[in-house]
Amino acid sequence: MLKVGVVGVGYWGPNIVRNFNAHKEAEVTMVCDLTPSSIARIHERYRHVTTTANYRDITDSPDIDIVAVVTPVSTHYEIARAALLNGKHVFVEKPFTSTVAEALDLIEIADKKGLKIMVDYTLIFTGSVIKIKELMDIKKLGNIYYYDSTRMNLGLFQHDVNVIWDLAPHDISVMSHVINDRPVAITANGIDHFNRGLEDVAYITIYFENNIIAHFNMNWLSPVKMRTTVIGGDKKMLVWNDLAADEKIKVYDKGVNIESKEGAYKLLVDYRSGDIWTPRISMTEALKLETEYMIDCVINNITPINDGYAGLKIVKILEASISSLKNKGQMVYL
Amino acid sequence: MLKVGVVGVGYWGPNIVRNFNAHKEAEVTMVCDLTPSSIARIHERYRHVTTTANYRDITDSPDIDIVAVVTPVSTHYEIARAALLNGKHVFVEKPFTSTVAEALDLIEIADKKGLKIMVDYTLIFTGSVIKIKELMDIKKLGNIYYYDSTRMNLGLFQHDVNVIWDLAPHDISVMSHVINDRPVAITANGIDHFNRGLEDVAYITIYFENNIIAHFNMNWLSPVKMRTTVIGGDKKMLVWNDLAADEKIKVYDKGVNIESKEGAYKLLVDYRSGDIWTPRISMTEALKLETEYMIDCVINNITPINDGYAGLKIVKILEASISSLKNKGQMVYL
Amino acid sequence: MLKVGVVGVGYWGPNIVRNFNAHKEAEVTMVCDLTPSSIARIHERYRHVTTTANYRDITDSPDIDIVAVVTPVSTHYEIARAALLNGKHVFVEKPFTSTVAEALDLIEIADKKGLKIMVDYTLIFTGSVIKIKELMDIKKLGNIYYYDSTRMNLGLFQHDVNVIWDLAPHDISVMSHVINDRPVAITANGIDHFNRGLEDVAYITIYFENNIIAHFNMNWLSPVKMRTTVIGGDKKMLVWNDLAADEKIKVYDKGVNIESKEGAYKLLVDYRSGDIWTPRISMTEALKLETEYMIDCVINNITPINDGYAGLKIVKILEASISSLKNKGQMVYL
Amino acid sequence: MLKVGVVGVGYWGPNIVRNFNAHKEAEVTMVCDLTPSSIARIHERYRHVTTTANYRDITDSPDIDIVAVVTPVSTHYEIARAALLNGKHVFVEKPFTSTVAEALDLIEIADKKGLKIMVDYTLIFTGSVIKIKELMDIKKLGNIYYYDSTRMNLGLFQHDVNVIWDLAPHDISVMSHVINDRPVAITANGIDHFNRGLEDVAYITIYFENNIIAHFNMNWLSPVKMRTTVIGGDKKMLVWNDLAADEKIKVYDKGVNIESKEGAYKLLVDYRSGDIWTPRISMTEALKLETEYMIDCVINNITPINDGYAGLKIVKILEASISSLKNKGQMVYL
Repeated sequence: MLKVGVVGVGYWGPNIVRNFNAHKEAEVTMVCDLTPSSIARIHERYRHVTTTANYRDITDSPDIDIVAVVTPVSTHYEIARAALLNGKHVFVEKPFTSTVAEALDLIEIADKKGLKIMVDYTLIFTGSVIKIKELMDIKKLGNIYYYDSTRMNLGLFQHDVNVIWDLAPHDISVMSHVINDRPVAITANGIDHFNRGLEDVAYITIYFENNIIAHFNMNWLSPVKMRTTVIGGDKKMLVWNDLAADEKIKVYDKGVNIESKEGAYKLLVDYRSGDIWTPRISMTEALKLETEYMIDCVINNITPINDGYAGLKIVKILEASISSLKNKGQMVYL
Repeated sequence: MLKVGVVGVGYWGPNIVRNFNAHKEAEVTMVCDLTPSSIARIHERYRHVTTTANYRDITDSPDIDIVAVVTPVSTHYEIARAALLNGKHVFVEKPFTSTVAEALDLIEIADKKGLKIMVDYTLIFTGSVIKIKELMDIKKLGNIYYYDSTRMNLGLFQHDVNVIWDLAPHDISVMSHVINDRPVAITANGIDHFNRGLEDVAYITIYFENNIIAHFNMNWLSPVKMRTTVIGGDKKMLVWNDLAADEKIKVYDKGVNIESKEGAYKLLVDYRSGDIWTPRISMTEALKLETEYMIDCVINNITPINDGYAGLKIVKILEASISSLKNKGQMVYL
Repeated sequence: MLKVGVVGVGYWGPNIVRNFNAHKEAEVTMVCDLTPSSIARIHERYRHVTTTANYRDITDSPDIDIVAVVTPVSTHYEIARAALLNGKHVFVEKPFTSTVAEALDLIEIADKKGLKIMVDYTLIFTGSVIKIKELMDIKKLGNIYYYDSTRMNLGLFQHDVNVIWDLAPHDISVMSHVINDRPVAITANGIDHFNRGLEDVAYITIYFENNIIAHFNMNWLSPVKMRTTVIGGDKKMLVWNDLAADEKIKVYDKGVNIESKEGAYKLLVDYRSGDIWTPRISMTEALKLETEYMIDCVINNITPINDGYAGLKIVKILEASISSLKNKGQMVYL
Repeated sequence: MLKVGVVGVGYWGPNIVRNFNAHKEAEVTMVCDLTPSSIARIHERYRHVTTTANYRDITDSPDIDIVAVVTPVSTHYEIARAALLNGKHVFVEKPFTSTVAEALDLIEIADKKGLKIMVDYTLIFTGSVIKIKELMDIKKLGNIYYYDSTRMNLGLFQHDVNVIWDLAPHDISVMSHVINDRPVAITANGIDHFNRGLEDVAYITIYFENNIIAHFNMNWLSPVKMRTTVIGGDKKMLVWNDLAADEKIKVYDKGVNIESKEGAYKLLVDYRSGDIWTPRISMTEALKLETEYMIDCVINNITPINDGYAGLKIVKILEASISSLKNKGQMVYL
């Protein structure tokens, strides 16, 4: 039976507690939070769980095997580091760390000590993304042209991070998971409407090695929620509307074949326009799959797909985006 | 009775012919096209119209008052110039010209000779844009935060222009019409998937003087048509879906009021979330209104809102966009 | 070259003229209408066409092969009869006739004289219905459970017919075309809100021989247009939204398999819930296909699927519906 | 502190427990269920609650003030009767009872003993229906023409009731709540596809005293969920889509004004077609409001709007519908 300690049980943490606790090979034995009411809510449901306001009680405990770090990003490094140094596997909320340097350090410690790091990219365990990944892996869409993501809502303004740190990790984790190509350059633009030094509307464009382009439109000031991703390939194209009740993914047998012979004057364009297919997707709770996978990785010594290196890739992109943003959209090469 | 000559009666030209001809103060007397079948189709419907394959028959004719230039953008300057020099008013398809220099020259000639230039920005005569303009003019949305436009479709690949020259004039003409602020800097990114030297996917970001940001997402490779514009203000927010059958415009009484006192730690956020209102919009054909307006401007010596200067503003933005695009998204200041 | 005369060129007639005239084996030579402006509009476009205000000029002309009857339903019988008696094939607007007796008489004359009758059920030549028919013919949906149709709009109030005579012919013609079973009983209900003796909201339910049920909801007083048909089978289910821009037909691999063993207590229900498939449908103008088919039937002596007998089937259903409606929804057996 | 006992804690019962228990003037002290796992689930969350498999432990307990009956409809009468006879107020799941006679008996007992009956018509406590009721009460839609309801889904087949008993109570409770007119006649049709003696598709039409018509389309075999109600009035029309995520209610300033002078020949039709308005609706959990209202009615001796008489009205309509259904749609007068 693996013992899990959870640091941070405010908004998202209770879901982590519930899922780890429901696993037959795991048990949450300790939780930490600075807010008494958050602690109380856990205590009420899980009488056997020890509670504390000091995360070191968890990271230093000899009885704990896995530490889940579900705190603001600025604290990930310190807590995860303490856990790893004490020989605990860590499950870290996204984004992994605030800087590339922090990520590299955590990876190094984990590697040395043979510990697992899993970064909580829940979206990649949703039925939608599992299906997209499956289709991309068998080249159902052909060679990819672009990845276009829009995530808008009337946002919860964060005190300490801008719209990129808040929203981009979702979409960049998915992109990174399904697009099998290397990002080479990044440009980002955005605006801060409230003089807080934190952008509330921003756009990121990523260029890849093999002529793919990715674009992310993030907006905290939109009256309507939008969470739409369009992926275009030379065989088929896919639209993922994460807010649709029933038909989240549509695959279009539509496309353009272009042969450009002897310059523009001999352009041969052939438009396909065929059926649309809405695959059935699994409705299993993503976090259930993810926590089961964490337990599986620990027990059977498997390297998670969402390990520290995967987390690092995304932190690199975020870091480059912020750097471009601060330099008026100047291209940043990775 | 004003006599109109139309140069170019392929795809869009016949609509220009039909609308000018239906006006009780105007009459189309001559059309020009290089394609015999296009000429034949006009001849069949309008027996009285003289036809020619040489545009100079129109620009040089002493009987013609207005010349409509409905040809590829690269030819606008030459034809419009000939018409103006011969004392004709001109109605020019969008975008106005290929370069800022050409636009300035045409404006100068027209000004000297007291002639009207109207650039065919049909969208601003649609019921939707008339309503948006009306709401913006009375500050219904309050102070504007952002203008976000997406125009995607499985495009007709053009032989000679990229996706920006093809799609951006539509949306930038609307933005320019309704946003009462001065654009100061532009950045554009994009990609050419077919080695034609012409981008098929591109993004433009425009910064304005008073903290407004505008973003344009243009894509010729999308399986689904999207034509959506979101305009956010501090009082209300508006979504315009140009492809909706019935409810093209929705005004959301939603928003965020933010007061940042003593830094981020005293952030006061107040979310409004109220009714939605879908105003009735006029269904009158936009081109009918626009051609009537042209006749009105000529007869009553009115300066059109969509005159040469308005056309120039958009050419400047397009030119700056292309310049940024060619320089990896580097910011171009206007 | 077949010569066609068209009686009635008000609202729908000009489309009939255009399509017959565009056929390379046919030519419209004469049209009739009582309204001078309708006649004038045809004359302007088709200079060679003779016009008249007296339909007998068409039905009695020795030069005419096909008479298209595009007039109010109350006049169909008289005009079609005159045409048939003079040896003309007839193309009759839907519904075929006002009564079963009229339909039988016309069929008898046509049969005796070896002439074709085609009833203009345009919908069955649309891409959507062609696809539905194709799927039903290969039993793609399995055995059919029900056919459910809703047709609502803010209607053009008719002076002389109720909502059933106005809207039901559309949907009943489709149902009759795709459902391969015999209707045995009909019940109809409705209401007249304006004391005109003409219902503006009505419902028809049809029972079939093999346990199929069909339902039609017709409403002239709806603020939103709805034209939705749901067809349920034991293998798959289909939804046809005729107002959708792009995805008119969706086929759901969803369903219920029920085995009832030893009464209700051993009910075995197995829900399938799988993919959704949106087949590509042809965008060819339905009336083009239909008029081509008419010409083909006449030239090659083919019995049209939408012949007098097909028209009669629908008139029978309409007559039974009205009878049930007048008797407070009492079941009428066919 | 009012003590509540809940009989039936399978699917819906736990919500009743949660809401009564959260009320500061009430407390759930005992629950009953025949299924041990259902009991166990309650016990786990609410340690203080006594559990039993015999409902009489609740109805006979001297410590209980309110009995909530959340069992299959066939058992409502017996349990509610026992509770009332023992001086308990009752909260009964919908539909109230299986027969009109049962309903009348319960009402009589309650009246004699001065006890409250509340029938759980949760829908009328939803933000949507509260808003509709509010608009109807101020005659915002004008005089009502029709009420049109569609409720389709891939249903949970019930062992003991047909689709009318399963689905109609929802919609008829709403109609009955918002339409201020007396139903006078009912007709119902339907079909049983699986030889179970229980219809799975059915339609009900209700005629009212003042020329209103109501129609209910209920279907357990639909691949897509639909829950749409259209209410047409002479001033405005309203569409309620209960499955819409954000814009559940739309009010259309559209309509038809008809004056019929001197018969059909002088029909004056005036179509209004104006704005659409989507009012904000409250998102408070309906059951929270309803249980609070129950407590309020008991404490302050208020007669609930959804009392036994309200429940009886709906049982009458259901009984009449079933009677019509068994008699091939014959009209049943109330």
